[in-house]
Amino acid sequence: MTLLMDAAGLQAFLVRDFGQVAEDFTVEQADLAGVTLRLRVAARHLRPGGTVSGPAMFGLADVAMYLAILSRIGPVALAVTTNCAMDFMRKPRAGVDLLAQARVLKLGRSLAVGDVLLFSEGLAEPVARAGLTYAIPPQSTPAH
Amino acid sequence: MTLLMDAAGLQAFLVRDFGQVAEDFTVEQADLAGVTLRLRVAARHLRPGGTVSGPAMFGLADVAMYLAILSRIGPVALAVTTNCAMDFMRKPRAGVDLLAQARVLKLGRSLAVGDVLLFSEGLAEPVARAGLTYAIPPQSTPAH
Amino acid sequence: MTLLMDAAGLQAFLVRDFGQVAEDFTVEQADLAGVTLRLRVAARHLRPGGTVSGPAMFGLADVAMYLAILSRIGPVALAVTTNCAMDFMRKPRAGVDLLAQARVLKLGRSLAVGDVLLFSEGLAEPVARAGLTYAIPPQSTPAH
Amino acid sequence: MTLLMDAAGLQAFLVRDFGQVAEDFTVEQADLAGVTLRLRVAARHLRPGGTVSGPAMFGLADVAMYLAILSRIGPVALAVTTNCAMDFMRKPRAGVDLLAQARVLKLGRSLAVGDVLLFSEGLAEPVARAGLTYAIPPQSTPAH
Repeated sequence: MTLLMDAAGLQAFLVRDFGQVAEDFTVEQADLAGVTLRLRVAARHLRPGGTVSGPAMFGLADVAMYLAILSRIGPVALAVTTNCAMDFMRKPRAGVDLLAQARVLKLGRSLAVGDVLLFSEGLAEPVARAGLTYAIPPQSTPAH
Repeated sequence: MTLLMDAAGLQAFLVRDFGQVAEDFTVEQADLAGVTLRLRVAARHLRPGGTVSGPAMFGLADVAMYLAILSRIGPVALAVTTNCAMDFMRKPRAGVDLLAQARVLKLGRSLAVGDVLLFSEGLAEPVARAGLTYAIPPQSTPAH
Repeated sequence: MTLLMDAAGLQAFLVRDFGQVAEDFTVEQADLAGVTLRLRVAARHLRPGGTVSGPAMFGLADVAMYLAILSRIGPVALAVTTNCAMDFMRKPRAGVDLLAQARVLKLGRSLAVGDVLLFSEGLAEPVARAGLTYAIPPQSTPAH
Repeated sequence: MTLLMDAAGLQAFLVRDFGQVAEDFTVEQADLAGVTLRLRVAARHLRPGGTVSGPAMFGLADVAMYLAILSRIGPVALAVTTNCAMDFMRKPRAGVDLLAQARVLKLGRSLAVGDVLLFSEGLAEPVARAGLTYAIPPQSTPAH
């Protein structure tokens, strides 16, 4: 198992292929254990009450796992999310970023599976967890 | 089983308690069979490529189920999503709205469970499905 | 969309390829809307307390969806379950069979997705629901 | 966070409250990191083809998480599984036991959430993963 894209490579991929969404995310770390991705929480990620919204948490988990897969197979895949099972366990802390830790559990020819833990920065207990599956097409070109 | 809030009541609830998010959604129908909710697709819901993004689909499913529960228990709950399992089956059609059909399968004292089908308007086959669980606190006041 | 195997064909498939497990199940109905499968509840399906166990409910949902897929593609697939998200909503009623209603929501080249509702016979409210995904290999031969 | 039941205590609980099912399982380890549970694979756990069946894997994950929760709250709960999302990633190896590693991610007043990895003994890559939720009743007495 080798790493085909590091944190800088993944960040560059985000900027190039994810356009304006890229500014939401910072790749904190990428190694064989997985990818850590930061959601730079802004007003548009909040729901009434001031905590990070469900869709923003879903998006963070999804992008984190997507990057974890790309770190293994390179920026050649048109992988698409086919399944996401998510548990929302605690209300995110207001006023701090969210961090996602994604790990790849299976990287098959046609399916990749992994899971993600989401943390409010500075807190030890996860706010959410997700299991995600991606379909990897036989031949593929860049993009999400 | 009675309906405590109809489509107009749910729409008014959205406007009052969900602020700017409310303009994304139109409650098309609400009866004992469930709630149909429209996502008025705009540029902010799209991902690179022009189809509706995963977070926007998640948000639509989540709000549709939330409203389906409120239609049964009234605007008194601070229900929170605890689990969502979602299958993404087809790419949403570009240029049309998404419609969610949510039904409540269980309405217990502390947990509500339901499922949602998402359709691109005008197409017969669903683009996604979701099963969702909400925790209903013992005593509750309005809001999400 | 046509039906390649009817209830009798599916039952014969079970007997031939699922051996002793087949006696647990009766295919009640199979049409384009889906498959209804009966779990003939016996002592081995019960947990302490006398209601149907979680593994038995999981098995019923899994076989029901598997048969619903086969009814569409014929007994030629070595489809394998890749994901199951299940909500357990009510305790099954003691002393009655369980019925599963499975429907196929997507039948793609490599993935099939569907959902299942489980009922205690004679009761209107479902005891559980499941969403399942199956991988369908490119070329395939009979068996599970 | 303290441990109220250790491996020996959990095993005794299984024997007392799970009757004949208890002989399927051996509690290998129980500490603050979680519980490792062995499924002593026998003919009744196999499906046609000789690998461990889906229901047997589901049962292993479910019991492992149940014991991980009990190790924290003691044998006083009538906790019930409300949700399980499971990814089946690899075919279990024939002829060896399955090991489940369960960890508790949230232990709330009314809900407990955790996840489980399943391994074929001797292999490094997991065969399956599961996320599970349990409802914990306000006042409770022993049993599953």
